[in-house]
Amino acid sequence: MDMISIIEDKKMGRALSKEQIAFFARAAADHTVPDYQLAALLMAIRLNGMDARETADLTMAMAASGDMLTPDVGGVPVDKHSTGGVGDTTTLVLAPLVAACGGKVLKMSGRGLGHTGGTVDKLESIPGMVVDLPEDRFLDIVRTVGCAVAGKSAQLAPADKTLYALRDVTATVDSIPLIVSSILSKKFAAGAKAIVLDVKTGSGALMPTLDASIALARAMVDIGHHAGRSIVAVVSGMEEPLGSHVGNALEVKEAIDILAGRAGGPLKQVSLFLGAQMLVASGIAGDEAQADRLLNAALDSGRGLEKFKEMITAQGGDCRVCDDVRLLPAAPVIRSMVAREGGYLAHVNGTALGMAAQRMGAGRIEKDDVIDPAVGFVMKKRIGDFIRPGDEICTLHARSEASAAETEQRIAAALTLSPDPAPKARLLYALVTPQGVKQLTE
Amino acid sequence: MDMISIIEDKKMGRALSKEQIAFFARAAADHTVPDYQLAALLMAIRLNGMDARETADLTMAMAASGDMLTPDVGGVPVDKHSTGGVGDTTTLVLAPLVAACGGKVLKMSGRGLGHTGGTVDKLESIPGMVVDLPEDRFLDIVRTVGCAVAGKSAQLAPADKTLYALRDVTATVDSIPLIVSSILSKKFAAGAKAIVLDVKTGSGALMPTLDASIALARAMVDIGHHAGRSIVAVVSGMEEPLGSHVGNALEVKEAIDILAGRAGGPLKQVSLFLGAQMLVASGIAGDEAQADRLLNAALDSGRGLEKFKEMITAQGGDCRVCDDVRLLPAAPVIRSMVAREGGYLAHVNGTALGMAAQRMGAGRIEKDDVIDPAVGFVMKKRIGDFIRPGDEICTLHARSEASAAETEQRIAAALTLSPDPAPKARLLYALVTPQGVKQLTE
Repeated sequence: MDMISIIEDKKMGRALSKEQIAFFARAAADHTVPDYQLAALLMAIRLNGMDARETADLTMAMAASGDMLTPDVGGVPVDKHSTGGVGDTTTLVLAPLVAACGGKVLKMSGRGLGHTGGTVDKLESIPGMVVDLPEDRFLDIVRTVGCAVAGKSAQLAPADKTLYALRDVTATVDSIPLIVSSILSKKFAAGAKAIVLDVKTGSGALMPTLDASIALARAMVDIGHHAGRSIVAVVSGMEEPLGSHVGNALEVKEAIDILAGRAGGPLKQVSLFLGAQMLVASGIAGDEAQADRLLNAALDSGRGLEKFKEMITAQGGDCRVCDDVRLLPAAPVIRSMVAREGGYLAHVNGTALGMAAQRMGAGRIEKDDVIDPAVGFVMKKRIGDFIRPGDEICTLHARSEASAAETEQRIAAALTLSPDPAPKARLLYALVTPQGVKQLTE
Repeated sequence: MDMISIIEDKKMGRALSKEQIAFFARAAADHTVPDYQLAALLMAIRLNGMDARETADLTMAMAASGDMLTPDVGGVPVDKHSTGGVGDTTTLVLAPLVAACGGKVLKMSGRGLGHTGGTVDKLESIPGMVVDLPEDRFLDIVRTVGCAVAGKSAQLAPADKTLYALRDVTATVDSIPLIVSSILSKKFAAGAKAIVLDVKTGSGALMPTLDASIALARAMVDIGHHAGRSIVAVVSGMEEPLGSHVGNALEVKEAIDILAGRAGGPLKQVSLFLGAQMLVASGIAGDEAQADRLLNAALDSGRGLEKFKEMITAQGGDCRVCDDVRLLPAAPVIRSMVAREGGYLAHVNGTALGMAAQRMGAGRIEKDDVIDPAVGFVMKKRIGDFIRPGDEICTLHARSEASAAETEQRIAAALTLSPDPAPKARLLYALVTPQGVKQLTE
């Protein structure tokens, strides 16, 4: 077995054997082949593809490249994964709600790089919150509280760590077999038995078209199903930020507002839909309707917010933020951005909004950048809304007046107004199960 | 300008701009981008190609990445390049002959890696011979003697050095734009004004089919022509070793035998054909017929062999090997390999023969391997010959009896006998000039 012949086979469009795949996954984990050979192979995979069997073999080989947890958490370990969206804080809403219904939510999450925020970065805006948990402590919180959200352990799927870092710098992120194996290998290694995937579609998403997003969803569901997992994928829209709040502490605030019953909207709607899928996949609810009732009861009774407090406390954070969001970091400059022109909000460049937040300091440009938890903005308008000159478009939370001014320009450039009425952006497109694709109507 | 967007463009099948190409060629020379990004780009180029304009830009950018010699050698600097063949010693025959006719042969050559030998490795089997010459000394010998053969200067086309080393270990050697730019950038940088290319075709060649070989030849001739060089390409067969001798000192001996008028055959025929093209391209002969007459006169008069002695002496070697080939390194075990079966020799696996010699010690398996100059073998039969059981197939020159026995098995496995008469292997297929492709008849 040698690396050059593996690259050669994939270059010529041949399927790689299970042994060849195991060889390079192991080599990626152990750093026993040079990065340049892995990079050439990744590009050959990106351009010549991998079939379903190869993708499954790669997923399993990457999962097996490090620790394989078999957690005893007193129930079915359930995980939810999003392919990444701006203002997407569903994890912080649904994890406590699902836990309040008896679910065991085991969520390891990456840090943010690029225009979408990382869930653990958001949680770190809560004073004292620890997201780098040892594996045993992480599982202990899942068992006792019902949910924990932590950074990915370095012992899980180390092959993915190497390959993901290389993909990021070699323009090979957008490959279905590489995305599938990267996501699922980590879920398998962490011991998730039920998995709900949120595959974003739209201009700012990993997969730009609905067809490509459904293809990615199907590929993941097929492989999870064949690996014996209870798995479904939701294809949801990403034409504009899901929540109205963009920025780390701001997004935590919005999650708390929803759990406290003070806020609603698309973030709540999608969180409840995904949470319902998690309860069904875990076997806690028999169908979506029952799951909806359970989740709404947990929300209305305040048990969801209580669970969030328990999780924050278990992870060392100050849970008083749930009762008083003013304890979250606040930006020194808070001011409105108002519309200079009028019209229907026809299009939002979600990626540009994410990058505007990133430039404010809410996200990393380089891997080692330090995040400013307080900054960001709160959108007051969504696609389809009619805007009059002088209306508040958003509230800016900036480190300085200069940053606020720059952000205002970036946000203005990301919004397209039209004299004609524009439809609202669609939130939910399809539910992909091992049995097939179900179109969703709202 | 950043490397990721360059990789992204080529991944998506877009043509790269002149500026993008200059950026990565410069980065390859200066090691300012990581090898893994270059490797990903090379695979994207291999799979998505480059058009003629991109290939020309890459050639020029690689040439300009180091020294650009403008040699004053008292005539038109002419170079010849072969894409690599087993038992291909044409350089050692034609360089002295062309010099004896007044040509100025400026030949920088790589070391061998893989199943074909490197010309400088062969020359180093001559006692005292120095092939690592400073650029000024190299040009001085070309000017005074008329020919010099040296290893490639590290100051010439350093971008190619980086990219070639990466291609070798990332299965991206077989790409026409990468081959063309690699070969021609070095010729342009060394100052060659007339260039004759020998593009091999057949089972053991870089390009396996005649069409692919002609395509490669055309691509190189087009780019050389547009760069103002006098350039032609010969497409020649590589179904079996060109000369009968395979191995470093053995190939030097065969070249001396031809220059001394003691040997003929395909190596002589192809050397004279290529040499004639060099004289025409240099403007020394008006046409092939005149060039042939000049070369044959140099051969018959012994002036070719005298030039070879002059070159050896100028490069520090012991020119007495030309009068007494027994001064070349000799192997301790020399014995015949005889046929066990009879039949027509229908097929020879040239690559396997090259690898047999490599295993004996005549070639490198790893880059830092030390070559054994004495070992190899002399074929006594060519494709089309009838072989009777007991006939001598070849003479083995080995370091040990065990090596001779192993080589015998490898050679036997590389030969296919048939009960039916088999045609001789074709030597010359086509002459590619800026005006078009001319089929050659023998």
